[in-house]
Amino acid sequence: MSERAVSVDPLIELRRDLHRYPEPAWREFATTARVVKEVERIGVDELYVGREVLAGEREALPDAEEIEMWFKRAQDAGADEETLAKLEGGYTGAVAVLKQGEGPTVGLRVDIDALPRAESESPDHTPAAEGFRSETGAMHACGHDAHMAIGIGVLEAVKESDFSGTLKVFFQPAEEVIGGARPMAESGHLDDVEYLFAIHIGLDHPTGEVVAGVGGFLAVSHVHATFEGEAAHAGGQPNEGRNAIQAAAAAIQNLYGIPRHKDGATRVNAGVIRGGTAANIIAEEATIEGEVRGETTELMEYMREHAGRVITAAADMHDCTVEIETGGVAPSAESDAALAEVIAEVARDVEGVDSILDHDALGGSEDATFLMQHVQDRGGLATYVGIGTDHPGGHHTATFDVDEESIRIGVEVLTDAIRALPQRRP
Amino acid sequence: MSERAVSVDPLIELRRDLHRYPEPAWREFATTARVVKEVERIGVDELYVGREVLAGEREALPDAEEIEMWFKRAQDAGADEETLAKLEGGYTGAVAVLKQGEGPTVGLRVDIDALPRAESESPDHTPAAEGFRSETGAMHACGHDAHMAIGIGVLEAVKESDFSGTLKVFFQPAEEVIGGARPMAESGHLDDVEYLFAIHIGLDHPTGEVVAGVGGFLAVSHVHATFEGEAAHAGGQPNEGRNAIQAAAAAIQNLYGIPRHKDGATRVNAGVIRGGTAANIIAEEATIEGEVRGETTELMEYMREHAGRVITAAADMHDCTVEIETGGVAPSAESDAALAEVIAEVARDVEGVDSILDHDALGGSEDATFLMQHVQDRGGLATYVGIGTDHPGGHHTATFDVDEESIRIGVEVLTDAIRALPQRRP
Amino acid sequence: MSERAVSVDPLIELRRDLHRYPEPAWREFATTARVVKEVERIGVDELYVGREVLAGEREALPDAEEIEMWFKRAQDAGADEETLAKLEGGYTGAVAVLKQGEGPTVGLRVDIDALPRAESESPDHTPAAEGFRSETGAMHACGHDAHMAIGIGVLEAVKESDFSGTLKVFFQPAEEVIGGARPMAESGHLDDVEYLFAIHIGLDHPTGEVVAGVGGFLAVSHVHATFEGEAAHAGGQPNEGRNAIQAAAAAIQNLYGIPRHKDGATRVNAGVIRGGTAANIIAEEATIEGEVRGETTELMEYMREHAGRVITAAADMHDCTVEIETGGVAPSAESDAALAEVIAEVARDVEGVDSILDHDALGGSEDATFLMQHVQDRGGLATYVGIGTDHPGGHHTATFDVDEESIRIGVEVLTDAIRALPQRRP
Amino acid sequence: MSERAVSVDPLIELRRDLHRYPEPAWREFATTARVVKEVERIGVDELYVGREVLAGEREALPDAEEIEMWFKRAQDAGADEETLAKLEGGYTGAVAVLKQGEGPTVGLRVDIDALPRAESESPDHTPAAEGFRSETGAMHACGHDAHMAIGIGVLEAVKESDFSGTLKVFFQPAEEVIGGARPMAESGHLDDVEYLFAIHIGLDHPTGEVVAGVGGFLAVSHVHATFEGEAAHAGGQPNEGRNAIQAAAAAIQNLYGIPRHKDGATRVNAGVIRGGTAANIIAEEATIEGEVRGETTELMEYMREHAGRVITAAADMHDCTVEIETGGVAPSAESDAALAEVIAEVARDVEGVDSILDHDALGGSEDATFLMQHVQDRGGLATYVGIGTDHPGGHHTATFDVDEESIRIGVEVLTDAIRALPQRRP
Repeated sequence: MSERAVSVDPLIELRRDLHRYPEPAWREFATTARVVKEVERIGVDELYVGREVLAGEREALPDAEEIEMWFKRAQDAGADEETLAKLEGGYTGAVAVLKQGEGPTVGLRVDIDALPRAESESPDHTPAAEGFRSETGAMHACGHDAHMAIGIGVLEAVKESDFSGTLKVFFQPAEEVIGGARPMAESGHLDDVEYLFAIHIGLDHPTGEVVAGVGGFLAVSHVHATFEGEAAHAGGQPNEGRNAIQAAAAAIQNLYGIPRHKDGATRVNAGVIRGGTAANIIAEEATIEGEVRGETTELMEYMREHAGRVITAAADMHDCTVEIETGGVAPSAESDAALAEVIAEVARDVEGVDSILDHDALGGSEDATFLMQHVQDRGGLATYVGIGTDHPGGHHTATFDVDEESIRIGVEVLTDAIRALPQRRP
Repeated sequence: MSERAVSVDPLIELRRDLHRYPEPAWREFATTARVVKEVERIGVDELYVGREVLAGEREALPDAEEIEMWFKRAQDAGADEETLAKLEGGYTGAVAVLKQGEGPTVGLRVDIDALPRAESESPDHTPAAEGFRSETGAMHACGHDAHMAIGIGVLEAVKESDFSGTLKVFFQPAEEVIGGARPMAESGHLDDVEYLFAIHIGLDHPTGEVVAGVGGFLAVSHVHATFEGEAAHAGGQPNEGRNAIQAAAAAIQNLYGIPRHKDGATRVNAGVIRGGTAANIIAEEATIEGEVRGETTELMEYMREHAGRVITAAADMHDCTVEIETGGVAPSAESDAALAEVIAEVARDVEGVDSILDHDALGGSEDATFLMQHVQDRGGLATYVGIGTDHPGGHHTATFDVDEESIRIGVEVLTDAIRALPQRRP
Repeated sequence: MSERAVSVDPLIELRRDLHRYPEPAWREFATTARVVKEVERIGVDELYVGREVLAGEREALPDAEEIEMWFKRAQDAGADEETLAKLEGGYTGAVAVLKQGEGPTVGLRVDIDALPRAESESPDHTPAAEGFRSETGAMHACGHDAHMAIGIGVLEAVKESDFSGTLKVFFQPAEEVIGGARPMAESGHLDDVEYLFAIHIGLDHPTGEVVAGVGGFLAVSHVHATFEGEAAHAGGQPNEGRNAIQAAAAAIQNLYGIPRHKDGATRVNAGVIRGGTAANIIAEEATIEGEVRGETTELMEYMREHAGRVITAAADMHDCTVEIETGGVAPSAESDAALAEVIAEVARDVEGVDSILDHDALGGSEDATFLMQHVQDRGGLATYVGIGTDHPGGHHTATFDVDEESIRIGVEVLTDAIRALPQRRP
Repeated sequence: MSERAVSVDPLIELRRDLHRYPEPAWREFATTARVVKEVERIGVDELYVGREVLAGEREALPDAEEIEMWFKRAQDAGADEETLAKLEGGYTGAVAVLKQGEGPTVGLRVDIDALPRAESESPDHTPAAEGFRSETGAMHACGHDAHMAIGIGVLEAVKESDFSGTLKVFFQPAEEVIGGARPMAESGHLDDVEYLFAIHIGLDHPTGEVVAGVGGFLAVSHVHATFEGEAAHAGGQPNEGRNAIQAAAAAIQNLYGIPRHKDGATRVNAGVIRGGTAANIIAEEATIEGEVRGETTELMEYMREHAGRVITAAADMHDCTVEIETGGVAPSAESDAALAEVIAEVARDVEGVDSILDHDALGGSEDATFLMQHVQDRGGLATYVGIGTDHPGGHHTATFDVDEESIRIGVEVLTDAIRALPQRRP
């Protein structure tokens, strides 16, 4: 049994505020400002924001106009101007540091971006029923709102605890586009972290279940294609066009047909397609935003190579040209069992936890693997912790939601693990 | 040789103004206001605007939000508020009537909408080079700006001429979506028209060439499909989605494969495709905006039936549902040779005309066929006149443009034909 | 009214014999032998057989083993050994020459090959009901059996008539594969022909209708593709194959999607597909036998160019190689109206003819166009005559059949036209 | 070190004889006769042949004509008439029984059928170079020739050994079509078997490597589809056909696109496609012979359900009908570790064995799982043993071959394991 009660209500309120104002990758302006406000309320020793937490290239960045639009919306929504000034140009995210004397340097990573999709309006969907449904058109359909609440909750609880050492909480942007982890990993803030926890809520585990060390991350790469053909009047000059939509459709059909691989799991998805301007014009442009994954980096590369071949040939087939971008790559990774064991041990005593799995495979991808590898490469340990939650809809769907009880559980499990580390350094 | 000189410069200025501010179907707010302003400058006996010129259902209407947005842009751009008030809700277009004593009632139809496509920024593209490139994101890529200039030019020239009879100029909205002709035909304004001229510039005929009677219109029907599947995380639950993009791609591939028909020309185009929200989500929705055409109405229906089968099966194939709309139908039609002959005769004497074709096939579609049939059904005659123009890019492409000299030619040919009618009634 | 009665029964018997023993292109061994036997019975001045009537390359030739098999079957079926000896290696066909004094040299071309398809066993299908259904597995599904009967009938009737001049009847092989006409045209036998008649039965015209000059032949080209990939165990090494069937399927889907052309009718067909060896092996080879057509030779070439692009890209897409053959090309052609007029005039007086069309478009292809062009290029005239027949099933289908009454009509029309030529040379 | 030398040369000769005369599933006439001859030479206590070893339905049976053809070829090739008489109608296979006193009843299963594919003629391919390349058009491309040689070798060696108990060698037909195992399992001969060994050579393991217990069999189901459309002349009536080849191509494209499954490996293959009769006829029939697999029976059923949906919709899409057969199902299964241990122990002492794996996943399918389950369901133990061999080409490819040294190793490993069982019953 955990010896300390977390004050939950403010965290739920925070989570609902964040849920109501979701922002997609590299556009988390109001989100970062809201997080910063909480961190400042708690009071930390160091706080880094925006450009200070990102180094190197930011992949999958939207265009300047799009970034500007969300920036203005955040201003209009009343986000703190001082914080916003540090985020200009899409430099989102923050790192909060507590220095509480001698002891290990521990990292906790939570991601903060939302998905560019609509949220359910159904009265069965709690956010709709209880008035905190998205107001931006985007949606926290992967629980990052809860992740941030847990991050703030842990920060506050650790500060008030007897923990001796340093805690850094990484509020990472742009996870969904596999964009934020690498620049944050390269910012230097992670270099001295000895123990890194990353968390994810849900993952088809019910409330009360904790996975101490998630592994089996699929390596992933974005594969975006822009087909260029030539417009023509569809009635009068059907033979004079070069049809970018036909090329894209041939590509999609055959992307899903890339052969399965004997060595393990692979994935492919053409998640977004856009093309053409009017029913009576042969489309001169079409774009596919897709991705490939593999159980290993090699398998991901097998998929990526085949995807490139399919897309190129589809363009040739319809006399179009194509540009292929394959940014946004994350490697596969594994949790360290020794660090996962600490989670498993403390979780036993947390109220509401009734099932603990030492290990489980994700079957998805995560750019947390960049941070984990960064720590592991320097001799540190990392584990990716699953906090079960009863979620009515699947991740990324319009009816995804979390059981807010799991926020409390997440805070307690992580806080207790961090507090335990100085004594039981694995 | 035509005995009257048209004052061209103001018409070119008008055409360029209209070119600079193109508005797509059912959103021609500033456009209608600009036309009305010219008509009022000229002075006519009757002027009908907006709701007064449209009866019955308006097909292919955009949603209210979209209409509202363009309405506000027109307000912001300074369009006349009094005219705008008559257009609210997307009731665009106008009919101007000159009553000049005894004589035939003659109609002239010009269309006024633009296409929802971007315009070339190339310095080789005259509108870009000379500063009248589109400012709205849409484009007059089919010459309707020139049509309106010709309509105004003819109205003014006929008013100043010895013509005895009644002239009605129909400024018809929403041609590109096959939406405006039917409600205008049913408004009553056409019922007493004995001779109807419709015009089109270009059509691959050079400046100086006139086609007295265009025929061979393809019957056309819009075919819009909305596929609904189910979202899922593309990495974690690939089998739990029902992929609307896969369904749409299968539909597109097979739509273009509908068998050719022994009885004549057919067409099919999937002109716009939209689907999905993010690379890592299996798409739950995808839409196709397409069209089918046929040399006869039967051939169009053959295509439409097959398109329906293909789309339905593509949805079934990927466990999706689909809704198919097939609004926006225009019949095929033919020009009356007797009326075309009047055009051919007067054109001989128009300066700059060096080639006259009695007849030519369009190979495209036009909702002018509704108006032509309406007149022909009541015993009147109709002809669709082609005014050649050197156009560098094809119709509907980013580099379409007109040789403005052809505006003068169009005005003179039509004016002379209208003036000739009282004497040579065919 | 024709002044001469044709003795019909033996021709019907002949047609049924030929129908019972159909042989595909370049394998017409028993067929040629049967025709030669009839010619010898009638008695002609010159008779050329096999190698004597063919010059240059024979396109679309089957492999030696296939030819040998049909040769042996013809031997087993009792075909005349002396004739067979001249046909060895697939040199099929014959030219029969009647020399009846001064006068024009007239040619009549009939084709002799069957299609490689099964014939209906339905009791509603007359050949099945009356015992002359195919015994070879192939089928006279395009009426060439009737063509041969007409050719023999005309030969006999002209011999017995007062015709003054020379008649050459060309029994041409391999029409269905667009293979026989060119080598026969180049054999020299056609060089002195001043007037050429080619005939076809049916073509959706009923018994009693005659088309004096068929035109509108579609130019055609065979397009055969052989995809080579790499085999692999479908369960154990799915990623190690290079799947020739996937490549072929992508090609087929996109071949049918080659854009229609504004300038006129086009066609494409993937008529035969073969690939793979077992359900559990990834296919290392697949072949498509297809064809493209166009209303003009240019349109056919447009289709052929696009087909080549599609097939090549489909192979690339699935990492296969492909060989494309485009042999078997026939040009488009037109009948000479002056010669067609002779047909139209005599047909009026033939019993049973109740409808005469001066001209009609075929909408299909024919290698007779090679022979027609050869004659026309040398200043002669040619016409392709349609002899209507009530045919229950479409051409090339399992239930195709002819109304045998049309054989008599065909013989009379052609005989009368040939007899008329010396007097009314057009 | 094994204490007994196997006489190898006759086994190699036997393997080469069998390799030279491969026969596909349910057509193993000469093959069974050859095996029976060897069994009779050795002398056994009981020998069952043909109908005596098969009960219930035989799935994936070829048609009677095909079976008859191979039967006659076997007669012509001089196979023993007495044995052939027992195999008539495609009842192939045999069971040989040695009864050597008290002790366990042990089964050894070897499969005997070949694949319907051509064999390489390359001089680099040993069977071609050394004169034992296939003479039948089929090919032992999966090593069943070596399996039979091992089966005979073990039978002879056990007979000559001190083994006390009963040995049954199952020469099973029709493995490649998932047809032979179920009827053999239901024949009763397996009911008293306490320990079952099944073997496979190769599987990407080199000569000298032995896998004591292969597992991870994919469940499999055949999925054969026959599309029926309607023929039409491709040039003259393109719209009147209903194109079975278009339907099949759409099916193939989308079969390979069935979504991957989160729960494990799946497979799909369209291994054989046949359709159409001539380039100028729209195809009225097309067939696909395919298969689906899954890591579990549930995953196979997921694939089968999706395959059915895709095929049905592809037929609908092109207005065709389709019949789907899904015979030939084999479950997944696992080897018993306790029995595998016996193999691992004895293999250590066999000359030439330098690597022993306790367990490895097949990643393919096998109907041996029927036999294994049958024994396991009755309380017995079963293991599937992999005998490594250096094979130059992959399984099922034209250049597959075995290193004949592995035949000796296989015989020794299996003989020693059988001899060990009475003492070390697991």
